[in-house]
Amino acid sequence: MKELMVYLNGKMVPESQASLPLSDSGFLWGDTVYECARTFNFKPFKLREHIQRLYRSLKMTRIDLAMGPEELETVSLELLEVNRELFGGGEDVWINHDVTRGRYAWERWVRPEARDRYPATVIIQTPALEFTVFAKYYRSGVHIITPSVRQMPHICIDPKIKHRSRLHFFLAELEVKEVDMEGFSLLLDLEGSLTENKGGNFFLVTDGVLRTPPPQNILCGVSRATVLDLARELGIPAVEESLHPYDAYNAQEAFLTSTPYCILPVSRFNGLPIGEEVPGPLTRKLLKAWQELVELDFVQQALDHLPR
Amino acid sequence: MKELMVYLNGKMVPESQASLPLSDSGFLWGDTVYECARTFNFKPFKLREHIQRLYRSLKMTRIDLAMGPEELETVSLELLEVNRELFGGGEDVWINHDVTRGRYAWERWVRPEARDRYPATVIIQTPALEFTVFAKYYRSGVHIITPSVRQMPHICIDPKIKHRSRLHFFLAELEVKEVDMEGFSLLLDLEGSLTENKGGNFFLVTDGVLRTPPPQNILCGVSRATVLDLARELGIPAVEESLHPYDAYNAQEAFLTSTPYCILPVSRFNGLPIGEEVPGPLTRKLLKAWQELVELDFVQQALDHLPR
Amino acid sequence: MKELMVYLNGKMVPESQASLPLSDSGFLWGDTVYECARTFNFKPFKLREHIQRLYRSLKMTRIDLAMGPEELETVSLELLEVNRELFGGGEDVWINHDVTRGRYAWERWVRPEARDRYPATVIIQTPALEFTVFAKYYRSGVHIITPSVRQMPHICIDPKIKHRSRLHFFLAELEVKEVDMEGFSLLLDLEGSLTENKGGNFFLVTDGVLRTPPPQNILCGVSRATVLDLARELGIPAVEESLHPYDAYNAQEAFLTSTPYCILPVSRFNGLPIGEEVPGPLTRKLLKAWQELVELDFVQQALDHLPR
Amino acid sequence: MKELMVYLNGKMVPESQASLPLSDSGFLWGDTVYECARTFNFKPFKLREHIQRLYRSLKMTRIDLAMGPEELETVSLELLEVNRELFGGGEDVWINHDVTRGRYAWERWVRPEARDRYPATVIIQTPALEFTVFAKYYRSGVHIITPSVRQMPHICIDPKIKHRSRLHFFLAELEVKEVDMEGFSLLLDLEGSLTENKGGNFFLVTDGVLRTPPPQNILCGVSRATVLDLARELGIPAVEESLHPYDAYNAQEAFLTSTPYCILPVSRFNGLPIGEEVPGPLTRKLLKAWQELVELDFVQQALDHLPR
Amino acid sequence: MKELMVYLNGKMVPESQASLPLSDSGFLWGDTVYECARTFNFKPFKLREHIQRLYRSLKMTRIDLAMGPEELETVSLELLEVNRELFGGGEDVWINHDVTRGRYAWERWVRPEARDRYPATVIIQTPALEFTVFAKYYRSGVHIITPSVRQMPHICIDPKIKHRSRLHFFLAELEVKEVDMEGFSLLLDLEGSLTENKGGNFFLVTDGVLRTPPPQNILCGVSRATVLDLARELGIPAVEESLHPYDAYNAQEAFLTSTPYCILPVSRFNGLPIGEEVPGPLTRKLLKAWQELVELDFVQQALDHLPR
Amino acid sequence: MKELMVYLNGKMVPESQASLPLSDSGFLWGDTVYECARTFNFKPFKLREHIQRLYRSLKMTRIDLAMGPEELETVSLELLEVNRELFGGGEDVWINHDVTRGRYAWERWVRPEARDRYPATVIIQTPALEFTVFAKYYRSGVHIITPSVRQMPHICIDPKIKHRSRLHFFLAELEVKEVDMEGFSLLLDLEGSLTENKGGNFFLVTDGVLRTPPPQNILCGVSRATVLDLARELGIPAVEESLHPYDAYNAQEAFLTSTPYCILPVSRFNGLPIGEEVPGPLTRKLLKAWQELVELDFVQQALDHLPR
Repeated sequence: MKELMVYLNGKMVPESQASLPLSDSGFLWGDTVYECARTFNFKPFKLREHIQRLYRSLKMTRIDLAMGPEELETVSLELLEVNRELFGGGEDVWINHDVTRGRYAWERWVRPEARDRYPATVIIQTPALEFTVFAKYYRSGVHIITPSVRQMPHICIDPKIKHRSRLHFFLAELEVKEVDMEGFSLLLDLEGSLTENKGGNFFLVTDGVLRTPPPQNILCGVSRATVLDLARELGIPAVEESLHPYDAYNAQEAFLTSTPYCILPVSRFNGLPIGEEVPGPLTRKLLKAWQELVELDFVQQALDHLPR
Repeated sequence: MKELMVYLNGKMVPESQASLPLSDSGFLWGDTVYECARTFNFKPFKLREHIQRLYRSLKMTRIDLAMGPEELETVSLELLEVNRELFGGGEDVWINHDVTRGRYAWERWVRPEARDRYPATVIIQTPALEFTVFAKYYRSGVHIITPSVRQMPHICIDPKIKHRSRLHFFLAELEVKEVDMEGFSLLLDLEGSLTENKGGNFFLVTDGVLRTPPPQNILCGVSRATVLDLARELGIPAVEESLHPYDAYNAQEAFLTSTPYCILPVSRFNGLPIGEEVPGPLTRKLLKAWQELVELDFVQQALDHLPR
Repeated sequence: MKELMVYLNGKMVPESQASLPLSDSGFLWGDTVYECARTFNFKPFKLREHIQRLYRSLKMTRIDLAMGPEELETVSLELLEVNRELFGGGEDVWINHDVTRGRYAWERWVRPEARDRYPATVIIQTPALEFTVFAKYYRSGVHIITPSVRQMPHICIDPKIKHRSRLHFFLAELEVKEVDMEGFSLLLDLEGSLTENKGGNFFLVTDGVLRTPPPQNILCGVSRATVLDLARELGIPAVEESLHPYDAYNAQEAFLTSTPYCILPVSRFNGLPIGEEVPGPLTRKLLKAWQELVELDFVQQALDHLPR
Repeated sequence: MKELMVYLNGKMVPESQASLPLSDSGFLWGDTVYECARTFNFKPFKLREHIQRLYRSLKMTRIDLAMGPEELETVSLELLEVNRELFGGGEDVWINHDVTRGRYAWERWVRPEARDRYPATVIIQTPALEFTVFAKYYRSGVHIITPSVRQMPHICIDPKIKHRSRLHFFLAELEVKEVDMEGFSLLLDLEGSLTENKGGNFFLVTDGVLRTPPPQNILCGVSRATVLDLARELGIPAVEESLHPYDAYNAQEAFLTSTPYCILPVSRFNGLPIGEEVPGPLTRKLLKAWQELVELDFVQQALDHLPR
Repeated sequence: MKELMVYLNGKMVPESQASLPLSDSGFLWGDTVYECARTFNFKPFKLREHIQRLYRSLKMTRIDLAMGPEELETVSLELLEVNRELFGGGEDVWINHDVTRGRYAWERWVRPEARDRYPATVIIQTPALEFTVFAKYYRSGVHIITPSVRQMPHICIDPKIKHRSRLHFFLAELEVKEVDMEGFSLLLDLEGSLTENKGGNFFLVTDGVLRTPPPQNILCGVSRATVLDLARELGIPAVEESLHPYDAYNAQEAFLTSTPYCILPVSRFNGLPIGEEVPGPLTRKLLKAWQELVELDFVQQALDHLPR
Repeated sequence: MKELMVYLNGKMVPESQASLPLSDSGFLWGDTVYECARTFNFKPFKLREHIQRLYRSLKMTRIDLAMGPEELETVSLELLEVNRELFGGGEDVWINHDVTRGRYAWERWVRPEARDRYPATVIIQTPALEFTVFAKYYRSGVHIITPSVRQMPHICIDPKIKHRSRLHFFLAELEVKEVDMEGFSLLLDLEGSLTENKGGNFFLVTDGVLRTPPPQNILCGVSRATVLDLARELGIPAVEESLHPYDAYNAQEAFLTSTPYCILPVSRFNGLPIGEEVPGPLTRKLLKAWQELVELDFVQQALDHLPR
């Protein structure tokens, strides 16, 4: 049986042979920027937007990537093609990019000319989407919990850089799991406003208006942008504004957005019920519009993967 | 010729064969705690203190390590013994521990019992100390620069956890290198007080008193503790207190402490000279006391590695 | 002579017999949420909006009120009817709701099932509006003073919850009275922006634009919403934005809004005059529109209560 | 059977007849300062210290109390004497003082001379100590949880004022109960340091040193002062310093102090175990010293009240 | 040869005779408010707006200026006329106003009636614009650097007051000059958002939208307002919003605005290039519109002053 | 009659001829550092400490002063000698130093070598001490008021630099004068802790311990250091610690320290009385010790200047 291939520094290698030296700066210092896109019916969704954001992350972290965005996109599509035959009907995959600063060596810090000797590490992967992880929440909704761990302030690392120094997200998640094994975290920023979690953005609905935290303290997800676009097309008013727990407790609807699940309804916030039905009417409308956009009922697709 | 051995998950393997799967949580989420000790004349220095701190980091990050501290120490000493013959006179080595949460899989987050299937990744290494990196600064002193990137607030990740989600230290360092290719960063916390840099603590001397930032926003280094101990023995008054750039600009002496170099004098702060000689009299006293403690003139040892 | 009746936990009782046991959680811990509406010509004004906000306060404070909003409204109107005959022409009343968590007992905190034994305390009152308290300021304008006591940050208690843990408002008011016995406080938030005072919201006018602090650090008053609605109808541009003392010092007009007086012009800010006439032209316009809305010249009504 | 008497505004009245008018400023605005002392073998413990703190609270809140501290003490002891016969052997009581600003009337805010018409409300009570509430934790230890609700910053209301505007403590406690029905809250301040909870102070032990948060963001409890005194007498080093969750996770021992239970050992912090035995050796030493001080084994006293 | 005249406290005096006593409050305490306008072809540009802002600064600093805004404008134009003949073709001048609180004397602080004895000091000057200072940056663009010194928070002194207590801007500038002798500072506020520098506002362009920091933490420059007006006329969407270094690093264009140069393109931000050409297309459009507005190619005017 | 001489840039000139050009950076940008010492019986007090602090201020502001500290001291003493004969018995004088960056010219910012062309401006003055300003407060005590304007955070300008960008102190003072024409301000820092005012430090006494804010957010006055020294000699325990308004309200004594008056007792804090007598016993003790140190009853000296 054939094995999934991985793109690693210019070569396609079988997944089982792809690994990282212990001296890689990505492992040693969380010095990696990355992106995660997905396919619908094996068609990449907004891959270009993901790649553009990757290059913004590269710029601010000053990681020099020899390859340009067009070439990276081409290689990604080639890899997707190579791996295509391993997946059956009803499946879809991630398209994941990781770029680290490459091998860590003190020399590169004191001799600029030495930097060329340590090229960035580039990894592209297309693993299967794990629908069972989130499928059931389309129906039951997610329980959101705000941990005491706070969102990283942008003056330390701007959350708009999608990077892998994410231990604080784990500390937050671990605290949440103490409360509810199936809870999802939602981090507050230092001032106490709602931000995001490890992979998702947050929306709520009050008085028929879609509200979501502003770009300042979050990673502006591609899924978040998709929802705002769909809302505009559907004539649903939407604002980006500072939101507090009070707003979540009293929302009529709420949901998370993220690449694998697109939109996942929220049913509880710190133990209290949100809204009257799950998903709420506006959430359903947005889900429907997204499904039409990608010509796939991805909710049903996910539910089909649940064990009977 | 023999190769350096590395301890990886229960086995000693040649360094060239030791690598990390791309799915390791340490790579993916900066989800690693670590320690770096060194030897003097191949005798480990305060290895136990380093290992104790590692277990404190493990506890708060809730990484379950099957092995206890005694066993980890034993294995570390065995590895040191195995690698001993690869190093000549005048050399010394690091003793580095890395523990990651192990393979990342969504399952572990929702099924507590599944956690046993994903044991922590344990790595021990004893690479050579790279004296050329820092040797010259014993004489010239270091140029300290405060970047605009700020120290991580403890409520996101406590800096007392020695972890590998350190991208902000890199962003700070990169900003510093724009100013002076040989500058060392010293991060301010959100309030503007002096803290630490990627691997070192900071001390200054005013009116014959040794001053260093308090434990609240820093990693309390083993070298920092050694300096405080030596000061006590030498009768040098020492205080831990909130310090600002003003205090550094007007210090009579200043130095960094870190495992590889122990004490490195500071000669400039944001471009202005510190003190009248480098190293200053109190710094020299502390260096001498440390050398006696470990029965090695480690300054000379480092200088001997510089090219003639 | 008949006595004013009060609704207390399901019964109408004469005011002189309505009291609270010392063990009530409302007294012991400021653990009460409340609302204050008023009538115009004895017609309740936006009573439903007040009741809806009460239920939002109840939700976030997790006080379980057996009665639903419709029933609470019905009872309130009945009480108003019962007390109607005690008031003469030219008078109007408050419609006040207080809901406490009920009797305090440690047991309820450790045994969820015990909670039913401690029902919430519900109080409804319709006392006369005291026009003499504020009437003269319609003409002279109010002197606003910013005390050193700051507005409660939402992460301690969200000011959008209308609750009775208000000591900080008193400390602020007491500080203001040291300056000017007739001054009104306006609290700054921790960052120094203008917020609100114990019962009122703040508006100012610059360049013909109505400006008021955003919802994040204030209680969004029903009167505040009324002004924003009236402004929309009158074609007056209005924005919610962060405002600082500088903006108040240099405003062309300013006013407070609150249930009893609707709109009260501001004539001075920390000792300096605001605007050229009191009330300013835009303030007069809004007052007039409100009077038309409720079909009552409530300014004249208040002035009529002043002693000749 | 005789009824417990309560001191209310100059008179001793049976508890069932002691109540508060709805117009009392204490109920309306959380405008009450209070104290809670206890007896050991019916001897009041540090009653004078509690009363002195009450007068400090009165001063800063500018509540005028006609009665001086000596008279208040005398009256309190009389009440204790009056109620003495209602309690059997093995019991002990609270001595609780509440002082509100008295009846709320707008007039007092604008006419200084009117203040005399609204004297403060004074309440003294001596209810039985409810040992069953906390007795079992002497053995099992307490589970401490840090909620997302933060401690009130002193610039809003200084926590050194013991007042009854405490809703934020309730919001914190309610959040904690979602996690563990038997958990105790410990609030972080805005910066993320450990502070206190609704009625208790926090101590931890590392390296044989007793550590407790500094006075700046807490109410300095009389029990806290007692522990610091006992530590001094026992030669246990003790420091007041800023403490973070990291310090609690890695403490060798931890405990709460409060009037009813004196010292209550902590066994878990956010789900992780603290120390190796509960109570730890130093905690036991302090408990023993306190018992000798008051000549009563109050731990056994409490345990005797548990149902067999 | 004739000398430039200066208006000083009611008289026109030659520049060489205009000086300030050492006891002036402006020198002693930075207690001066000021304005700087310029001419185009010797026609004053928005002089009235500058003067209005001066009076707003005067109000909040409570400096009493006997002269009203109309009179100040008249005098300014007279001075300009007087000095007109000293300047040749191709030149233009500043119109600068300085108002200090006048002679400092303790008496004025304790005896209100004494204030009249110490009138404000009023200075008007029309020195030549120094084109060589900034001309070359129209072509090369400016290198922006963010120092560690932060923007003054408005609760200390509101930056909307144009005052001369500006040492922090100098400390920032000095830090920047350590990095790049030709760098321009851009200060972050305490929270880390982009604000302004000693004399200029900042704009950037992303996705065709002009973005600039909101009024809250900056001086809202007259040039900034001119750009926003021109953008409206040209149909370029423009928003005022909180901006972070990430936004600057990834901008397509950026520029500074200030009275002498109007618009100066930015080519680098903390060492990294901004945009693809300097000035960018939108920047050029705005420059052109401004030149049409004032009927002068002020860029060419400045370049003509550069040495060949 | 002879005139007071002033040292200005190397020359002694009569006071009436000493003035500052309008282009001096000190006037334009508050770009001046300064010191104020005084004499007792015409003997300079701690002049060297003042001069040392001046050079610390010069260093951090990067103002290059050609003259060294010894020379500056010599010149100061010469000036004092020159002016000696103008003062009679019972009088004493200030010894004031001002150093500005010199003439402002853009050139110095872009061409390092140009800096030599713009030497620092140096001013030394010895005006008479104005005893009538403060004499009466030795008896009545000072009324301290905390304004809403906050102390400058050190990350903008460190208050340990004694500089003349002090407008915020004036804004604070002006706000205080609105409350009480004879009030003295005491600024809170951003967090709300007590700091200092325009020229003085603050001390309070509780439980026989002298307490004063720590060095971090204040200028550490020479008078403050003198009090701490005297306390040590007298065996009075003294601590530097974060203090809040609560601590001031409840202090047994409080006082200000500053060069002209040394120690000035505080009698009220925000309207409430402090302590039982003014000055308190410990304050009197410190005053007496200081008088012995300088061999002058400076309190009586000041009182003698009051009009009968």
